[in-house]
Amino acid sequence: MSDLTTQVRAFAEERDWQQFHTPKNLAMALAGEVGELLAELQWLTPEQAAAVMEDPEAAARVRAEIGDVMIYLTRLADVLGIDLVEAALTKLDEVAVRYPVHQSKGSAAKR
Amino acid sequence: MSDLTTQVRAFAEERDWQQFHTPKNLAMALAGEVGELLAELQWLTPEQAAAVMEDPEAAARVRAEIGDVMIYLTRLADVLGIDLVEAALTKLDEVAVRYPVHQSKGSAAKR
Amino acid sequence: MSDLTTQVRAFAEERDWQQFHTPKNLAMALAGEVGELLAELQWLTPEQAAAVMEDPEAAARVRAEIGDVMIYLTRLADVLGIDLVEAALTKLDEVAVRYPVHQSKGSAAKR
Amino acid sequence: MSDLTTQVRAFAEERDWQQFHTPKNLAMALAGEVGELLAELQWLTPEQAAAVMEDPEAAARVRAEIGDVMIYLTRLADVLGIDLVEAALTKLDEVAVRYPVHQSKGSAAKR
Repeated sequence: MSDLTTQVRAFAEERDWQQFHTPKNLAMALAGEVGELLAELQWLTPEQAAAVMEDPEAAARVRAEIGDVMIYLTRLADVLGIDLVEAALTKLDEVAVRYPVHQSKGSAAKR
Repeated sequence: MSDLTTQVRAFAEERDWQQFHTPKNLAMALAGEVGELLAELQWLTPEQAAAVMEDPEAAARVRAEIGDVMIYLTRLADVLGIDLVEAALTKLDEVAVRYPVHQSKGSAAKR
Repeated sequence: MSDLTTQVRAFAEERDWQQFHTPKNLAMALAGEVGELLAELQWLTPEQAAAVMEDPEAAARVRAEIGDVMIYLTRLADVLGIDLVEAALTKLDEVAVRYPVHQSKGSAAKR
Repeated sequence: MSDLTTQVRAFAEERDWQQFHTPKNLAMALAGEVGELLAELQWLTPEQAAAVMEDPEAAARVRAEIGDVMIYLTRLADVLGIDLVEAALTKLDEVAVRYPVHQSKGSAAKR
């Protein structure tokens, strides 16, 4: 993971792209890539979407879009000085308190 | 990273949430969380956004939203059987070919 | 429609919010509101989502989110000097050429 | 506006696309199109974005993306039985109460 952060940073610095990589721009790019990921799944039935990785061409497209999303998320976190995995683990702890197992079992109700 | 995947999976399984965690639903949730992240930055000037982590309250909100995005991205990748870091590194290699350093230096032009 | 544009513009001007309503900021806000709309539908089954307007509380939330999306889309188009309905009709004509009825019937395949 | 709704509906029905146009699918498509719109603006400086409509090629792309967003928003509202302009006007009234002019002047603070 820290290796990915370093490589994405080097990729940007070699191309002098730090000037474009502001938090707002990167957040927009992240949303743009998530949009492309949604586009891969939007017209599939739930059953087709569940089996999307069995079709090699669709799987390659989905994997590429997931990769793009991860690249921009990694870069945004790096620019903001946030450790991505730590932020997720901390948030997971908070969500665990908000959604106790016995009260949340099988329910998607928001709290 | 693999530890995060395992913890997010356990979190979902303990709550019987696998039924909700289809690829389409998780992609929608991912987009929803990215929307909340954008909302933290949308009215800031570029200068304010660059300094957002210096304000403890704003920093905590941004960190929490980044954590949420990472949780759903991790879960979506897990459900699809995709290795998140590997997908990002593979894509980075492809993008490096499409944007050679000498042709892309200082330019955000799309290829 | 032109009445909505005028009212949204007046709303912003009365509050001196033109300074915040740059194209980039409004596009981010639009994506943020779309994210909230997705959040209303994300955990529903296709059947539940198809019937979402029959539940008064869910219907009110969905209507409010659709309203938010439309407000920001209207404002963004106004700031850019784009006629929203005309832009949609023009695009619809183009898409009709790209997806001829006899070749597209019952198929979601991208062209 | 109601003309646009009718034309978008006819477009879908002629192609037997009602089967794909579920609320969840259309919300995903809407987010996908907003992502493409963000992509047009993401690397521009605020100044460049403010002048984007002066460049004929960029203007055409932005107009097309705005059109796409409006098409899917119109279709989603139609499928849900929501009047888009009415939903926006209703929401604008609510927001006007939450953000009184004298308390909100020049401030983007959330309430």
